[in-house]
Amino acid sequence: MPRAWTLASRPNGTPTHADFALIDVDAAPLNDGEVRVANRWLSVDPYMRGRMNDVKSYVPPFAIGAPMDGGAVGEVMESRSDSLKVGDMVLHMQGWRDEATGPAAAFTKLPALDAPPQAFLGRLGMPGVTAYFGLLAVAEAKEGDTVFVSAAAGAVGSTVVQIAKAKGMTVIGSAGGAEKGEWVRSLGADGVIDYKAGSVVRALGEAAPNGIDVYFDNVGGDHLDAALAHARPRARFAICGMIDVYNDAKPTQLKYLARLIGNRVRMQGFIVSDYMNRAGEFYAEMGSLVASGKLRGEETVFDGLDTAPDAFLGLFSGGNTGKMLVRL
Amino acid sequence: MPRAWTLASRPNGTPTHADFALIDVDAAPLNDGEVRVANRWLSVDPYMRGRMNDVKSYVPPFAIGAPMDGGAVGEVMESRSDSLKVGDMVLHMQGWRDEATGPAAAFTKLPALDAPPQAFLGRLGMPGVTAYFGLLAVAEAKEGDTVFVSAAAGAVGSTVVQIAKAKGMTVIGSAGGAEKGEWVRSLGADGVIDYKAGSVVRALGEAAPNGIDVYFDNVGGDHLDAALAHARPRARFAICGMIDVYNDAKPTQLKYLARLIGNRVRMQGFIVSDYMNRAGEFYAEMGSLVASGKLRGEETVFDGLDTAPDAFLGLFSGGNTGKMLVRL
Repeated sequence: MPRAWTLASRPNGTPTHADFALIDVDAAPLNDGEVRVANRWLSVDPYMRGRMNDVKSYVPPFAIGAPMDGGAVGEVMESRSDSLKVGDMVLHMQGWRDEATGPAAAFTKLPALDAPPQAFLGRLGMPGVTAYFGLLAVAEAKEGDTVFVSAAAGAVGSTVVQIAKAKGMTVIGSAGGAEKGEWVRSLGADGVIDYKAGSVVRALGEAAPNGIDVYFDNVGGDHLDAALAHARPRARFAICGMIDVYNDAKPTQLKYLARLIGNRVRMQGFIVSDYMNRAGEFYAEMGSLVASGKLRGEETVFDGLDTAPDAFLGLFSGGNTGKMLVRL
Repeated sequence: MPRAWTLASRPNGTPTHADFALIDVDAAPLNDGEVRVANRWLSVDPYMRGRMNDVKSYVPPFAIGAPMDGGAVGEVMESRSDSLKVGDMVLHMQGWRDEATGPAAAFTKLPALDAPPQAFLGRLGMPGVTAYFGLLAVAEAKEGDTVFVSAAAGAVGSTVVQIAKAKGMTVIGSAGGAEKGEWVRSLGADGVIDYKAGSVVRALGEAAPNGIDVYFDNVGGDHLDAALAHARPRARFAICGMIDVYNDAKPTQLKYLARLIGNRVRMQGFIVSDYMNRAGEFYAEMGSLVASGKLRGEETVFDGLDTAPDAFLGLFSGGNTGKMLVRL
């Protein structure tokens, strides 16, 4: 019998295993036009933390007791649609479960790029689109710019590093610990900051003595403050995520916010769905980067549906290098 | 003998009278091309606080012991230049003193608009240019928008309120105390927040139940946080000043900063000098607003050069309604 993770309770602060419950799901027969998909890879992403709260946001909250949603890649096992056939690998949003069913239109056949299927949950999927348009469209980063990216060992950040290098920028990435830092450097980063080793504002000053033109924010807090402290005139900040505050209602403390004025800094919040209609442009360019080996993807993989909450909770304790995935 | 205020010491925190010293200045004979001007009005402005610190910024720091600079309007008393004649009223940057001398090019004859000379230090001067371009160019405010402006009883804020109303926007202004609030309402504001009376975030929610499209920030801190809490999708914030932190190294605390992401808020810092080359556009439009009575200017006036530090210090304790000026 297929199983699915549900939200058992809304977490107050950092979620725990008690907030999740694994339930059995009826495998209903397919209607015309529907497909049944065996999930092979599930995505867990920081933004899902927001969906655990019962607040209005850009994605609706998870309902208590209902299967949770999320990105997933699976294989079509049964089809009553002409558009998908058994064996097709598809991308869809019915993650957190081992089997997905629904109208064929809710499932997208993976683009024919030379990459493993799980890459479409990472550098060729939502995190990749986020990195690409956040860097190039929101922050308007261009050749010659010095770019600072936080959580540079994460799925989004590591893609930002590689796109920036491919486009002729200087890149400083932050990551927690020497091992992740080494990996970020291996992706081409010109400078690496270990945020666990001391003051980010001081480390960024050393890594970028002439300041930064672009900041790609996945963290908020001390990283954002460091970026403000070292912003060059007319610097552009793409504000993508603030994992610093997802579990914690504490206010963000910024010592250098007023620098925004004299340096005419622009901070622009964005969400990836605003750019999904430009996926063609994204695949065209990213496909060639993948083919030329300029866009590598590390994965941190948990095995088995049972481990999905572990994988998710690991996002908030720095447990992943590259994309965090669950393999079924 | 002419006198001038100098910076005696760099203040740590809120400046005091001991940080200023009044000195006698030699009245040197004029060289060819120079003029001597008797100052009639001196401007004191919040941005001057930044110049008292010895840090790199968009305007250089005041030198210890040298006459301080600042906006001023005066009358030409002696001229060795063809471009200015005795009796001309001029705008210039040699404030904080009773007499100014220098090349005629450093003095600008007041435009022929139907307004008193001191208006060119307020709604028709630097604060006016700041309000106009901050609202219309930086924040891209347009008819139908709901605009929140902090320090709405100040020189910049009160001009923002009136330009916004003249352009068909809904305006909420914050000010300290009932009396200032009444004045802001008399300028046309649709809603007024007394920031001394309680939580700004709650008051803004009541004044703008459907949220705000534009925030014009002169304050930072709790006002900025309230604007983040109530920002509509794609809201634009023009970050003009943060008087909240000018005297105080305490970090800004923001509870609602992450709202920037889901609502795709843009925060843009700016400084007025970037728009000085568009003064013609400004005078054309503001002149007609002044002529039609749609741009009123309140003034808080101190009399005599001796009072200049009092006027300046009053800016940080909410001592002014409208433009703070010193009359000589």
